[in-house]
Amino acid sequence: MASTPVSKKQKTSKDAPYELIYWPGLPGRGEHVRLALEEAGASYTDSAHLEDGMKLVLSHIDTKNLGDAANPPPLAPPILKHGDLIINQTPNILLYLGPRLGLVPKAEDDEDGIYKVNELALTALDGLSNEAHDTHHPIATGQYYEDQKEEAKKKSADYIKNRIPKFLGYFERVLKGEASKGGKWLYGGEVTYADLVLFQCLDGVKFAFPKAVGRMEKEGKFKSVFEHYERVKERPKIKAYLASERRQKYSLGIYRHYAELDED
Amino acid sequence: MASTPVSKKQKTSKDAPYELIYWPGLPGRGEHVRLALEEAGASYTDSAHLEDGMKLVLSHIDTKNLGDAANPPPLAPPILKHGDLIINQTPNILLYLGPRLGLVPKAEDDEDGIYKVNELALTALDGLSNEAHDTHHPIATGQYYEDQKEEAKKKSADYIKNRIPKFLGYFERVLKGEASKGGKWLYGGEVTYADLVLFQCLDGVKFAFPKAVGRMEKEGKFKSVFEHYERVKERPKIKAYLASERRQKYSLGIYRHYAELDED
Repeated sequence: MASTPVSKKQKTSKDAPYELIYWPGLPGRGEHVRLALEEAGASYTDSAHLEDGMKLVLSHIDTKNLGDAANPPPLAPPILKHGDLIINQTPNILLYLGPRLGLVPKAEDDEDGIYKVNELALTALDGLSNEAHDTHHPIATGQYYEDQKEEAKKKSADYIKNRIPKFLGYFERVLKGEASKGGKWLYGGEVTYADLVLFQCLDGVKFAFPKAVGRMEKEGKFKSVFEHYERVKERPKIKAYLASERRQKYSLGIYRHYAELDED
Repeated sequence: MASTPVSKKQKTSKDAPYELIYWPGLPGRGEHVRLALEEAGASYTDSAHLEDGMKLVLSHIDTKNLGDAANPPPLAPPILKHGDLIINQTPNILLYLGPRLGLVPKAEDDEDGIYKVNELALTALDGLSNEAHDTHHPIATGQYYEDQKEEAKKKSADYIKNRIPKFLGYFERVLKGEASKGGKWLYGGEVTYADLVLFQCLDGVKFAFPKAVGRMEKEGKFKSVFEHYERVKERPKIKAYLASERRQKYSLGIYRHYAELDED
């Protein structure tokens, strides 16, 4: 897939800007797609900034939508539209964009590099995005936080004590490992979309649990991970994006700050 | 990736059987990899059936393991070793195996087919494997079920009422959609690994919640999905595998049957 020549693409319906379809008003899972597009300086539209953005999202995930001849219906946003292609699932969209945006190793240099990047992205999303979401919704996604506050308190305590350290410890090992080629980036010595995913995940977890993560940073056990975070944040295009209005503020999405769920 | 000629592979270290590294004693997430290998009639070893299988798993996920020059350390099994390659994350392993086992559309016929298959597999794993696991461990993966029984009861009630129907309804739409090319298989008119993933997910959820899923089957709302399940089950190689001793029984893994979590 990474070996498909770009010239071939340009003759198809895909000679079009990328279209990100995601809920307006929060970074959410759409943010991983935005960061990849921004880092690459790609041309894209974002339903978060379109007047009828919400309507567009809802039309795609309508339970009457059966998809079309080439595309199964999407279950949930983020959704990427590129010409005739419509795909969903955050790590799947990143997998599609990776070779096109130069955010995975070139297939001719490292045939299997894309699988290393994909596994790192999936792992960050599992532990530091999906599990982070479940800390405030451990019982039912469809019920209010207020209706599962007691359970959320218990789950958050476990998340802070066991799960955040497990995943930060894992990425510390990844950065210290040989396959990182120097420990600056997660894999292969160059920035990949897995680096952007880890950055956004840690940014969200820091927002949700500032005291707990602040303490972990001070303790110094995951030094490489926190340095990696700063390194991504300082990349010129990421820095400009984060300072822009395109970067939306955290609100009632995946990452929420409830003081009572953080440590004292 | 799908376009890599098989002949090229055979000259590398990958001219070797696939090695699945997974916990002995339960189907678990390793089962998705097994079903793909079995359907394709591939040559593989399975740590579940090796004398030191448990030791092998533990050596890979040891927190002192930093990986090697080409491979980041794996976080958790299932792990696939193929020659010098070591990768983890269930959907990532399937993505790697898909083109090699003929379980995704050929890239020359359908360049983006692999992304459709990947998104369907990710969605089934999200809703019918990860969420199914959380029904008995809503608070903490590292604590016993008995210590979170009350919360598990609440989460299971929501899972049965809202989540199982959401995901079965989604796959019903996928099968009814045009991109399935006839509704026999999820995508493109041919069996892909997404079909095997959905089969195993539904098999697990049926085991965990026999009354609730039995009722849903009788109600007929998700007829295409239940027919799809039988269709996968009757594929000759899958049928032979399920009848063999290689197919392990459900126990204390992802899918557990606790009568008190099922509906009355």
